Amino acid sequence: MKLTVTASLSFMMAFTLSGQLIAATRSEPIEPIKPVQSINLGMVELGKKLYFDPRLSKSGFISCNSCHNLSMGGTDNLTSSIGHNWQQGPINAPTVLNSSMNVAQFWDGRAADLQAQAGGPIANPGEMASSHTLAVDVLQSIPEYVMEFEQVFGSDKITIDEVTQTIAEFEKTLVTPNSRFDKWLLGDNSAINQEELAGYNLFKNSGCTACHNGAAVGGRSFQKMGLVAPYQTTNTAEGLSAVTGKDADRMKFKVPTLRNVALTYPYFHDGAAGTLGEAVEIMGQIQLGKTFSDTENAQIVAFLKTLTGEQPSFPLPILPPSNENTPKPTPFN
Amino acid sequence: MKLTVTASLSFMMAFTLSGQLIAATRSEPIEPIKPVQSINLGMVELGKKLYFDPRLSKSGFISCNSCHNLSMGGTDNLTSSIGHNWQQGPINAPTVLNSSMNVAQFWDGRAADLQAQAGGPIANPGEMASSHTLAVDVLQSIPEYVMEFEQVFGSDKITIDEVTQTIAEFEKTLVTPNSRFDKWLLGDNSAINQEELAGYNLFKNSGCTACHNGAAVGGRSFQKMGLVAPYQTTNTAEGLSAVTGKDADRMKFKVPTLRNVALTYPYFHDGAAGTLGEAVEIMGQIQLGKTFSDTENAQIVAFLKTLTGEQPSFPLPILPPSNENTPKPTPFN
Repeated sequence: MKLTVTASLSFMMAFTLSGQLIAATRSEPIEPIKPVQSINLGMVELGKKLYFDPRLSKSGFISCNSCHNLSMGGTDNLTSSIGHNWQQGPINAPTVLNSSMNVAQFWDGRAADLQAQAGGPIANPGEMASSHTLAVDVLQSIPEYVMEFEQVFGSDKITIDEVTQTIAEFEKTLVTPNSRFDKWLLGDNSAINQEELAGYNLFKNSGCTACHNGAAVGGRSFQKMGLVAPYQTTNTAEGLSAVTGKDADRMKFKVPTLRNVALTYPYFHDGAAGTLGEAVEIMGQIQLGKTFSDTENAQIVAFLKTLTGEQPSFPLPILPPSNENTPKPTPFN
Repeated sequence: MKLTVTASLSFMMAFTLSGQLIAATRSEPIEPIKPVQSINLGMVELGKKLYFDPRLSKSGFISCNSCHNLSMGGTDNLTSSIGHNWQQGPINAPTVLNSSMNVAQFWDGRAADLQAQAGGPIANPGEMASSHTLAVDVLQSIPEYVMEFEQVFGSDKITIDEVTQTIAEFEKTLVTPNSRFDKWLLGDNSAINQEELAGYNLFKNSGCTACHNGAAVGGRSFQKMGLVAPYQTTNTAEGLSAVTGKDADRMKFKVPTLRNVALTYPYFHDGAAGTLGEAVEIMGQIQLGKTFSDTENAQIVAFLKTLTGEQPSFPLPILPPSNENTPKPTPFN
């Protein structure tokens, strides 16, 4: 009984001591990121190692983290990525952060979920250039991995489905809560300043939240790039039509999350916009038919910077070594 | 007084409770790794970020950690490394672990210390392919880096000497104490088994410790590769003679550390030995004129595996973002 009373008093004191806090979450088209629920920890720890393991590539040099670098907002900050044999990727690498909230994966949504996505780059000749068979053979040759898979899945026979499932489970933990904007959404009035608030109101009232909404501030739908004016690009990606075969889906791309957008430059599927100011200007023109003034643009950019959340923090994983039975990487042939 | 007595009692009890412990450190040609002393922590934290920052390369893709991967024993586990534009490196990447104990850096010792080494790959056209000027310009454009350099060095003008000094300071922390062999050296008889002990005695009595000695089990001298029989290789590196110009120094290479050798495959300056067994066999033949039996070889390999220490553990660093003033990476031109 005594313990209950103490706890209640502490709870009330928290709100008494900080005049800035209000009790209720704001009702807005953007929602705070919620803590991850229902995670298989053994799978996460295994998937974390695999995410950092370059032996899933033919060269032994490229890991998931090479292009979705968790030191850099879950991206490579390049216009398009570098793949096996220094091949230039066709499209800008989207951030892995908060990607579990996406309606589908890849810009064209060709993977239904994170697990389906994870298998793609491993076997893509322009990316990691391995094969699912080779990747599994590498892991199966390493006793520490075999033991860990057995712990998680109850079998010492590793499958590619298990590999991608563990990577996806790790990726589900890569959420970035507690951005300043989330704190504001949760009732802390002092978390964002007047310029940032003006930027958010402009963002909302101009129609940006029609697509950039929800907890991920995007990621929920496919939209045409160039809704009111055509988008000029030399990039040949055609978006959703490559998946559906429908001409009406040409240049429809998954709306990217704006979470951590200050970290995930350059912008758009072709990586053509180098700065947030440039991205806001172009979006206004081709999606909304609006030309933001310099002041308005700066306000929206200020708002966007409040969407940077706590980056995932964990010790760099230590990988189990290969042995004489492990297929050797072949970077140069 | 009372405190002193208590401490002494605890000390005695530790030895009383564990019958395996003896009081004295063994006197052997190999010494335990000592904890790092006298480290500038601000410099270490900054250097850690720089070590992981691919923006020190022209492509924005290659960091120190790409080839000296701290998830993989401080190496890339490749025969020779992959550099800018997928160029093949001329030599096997040595481990960064315990490299502060080396008499000099690089296989040919052309850098006197870690700081001198750190500047090499950044500006090497076959490795990171940037320049010292460009690397500094990138960092100078990023306010978070400028602030951190100012904190550490007292100036907001970044220099390449400061960059390499901080990377070197971080690298000094990359020691791997508490291997099973170190525990045995420190008096724990149960830390290694009979086969491993037999392997060590064979290692010592065969003459391996003539070169592989000290805390790093190597790294202290340059020795001719092929002392009693010529080493067959297609690799064109000539070793120390490239630095001294002396013909007598041809094929003299820095004796590599054997710390964590189970993790730092493949072996030798040309990366030609894929396994420890192969490396032991060749070393016996060309350095000692000895042919180890299969049993002896296995014993030495078993001993070598006891040299794996605690790997450095720290949270993956989060890098400050670039901005519109930051020179853009140019991977494809």
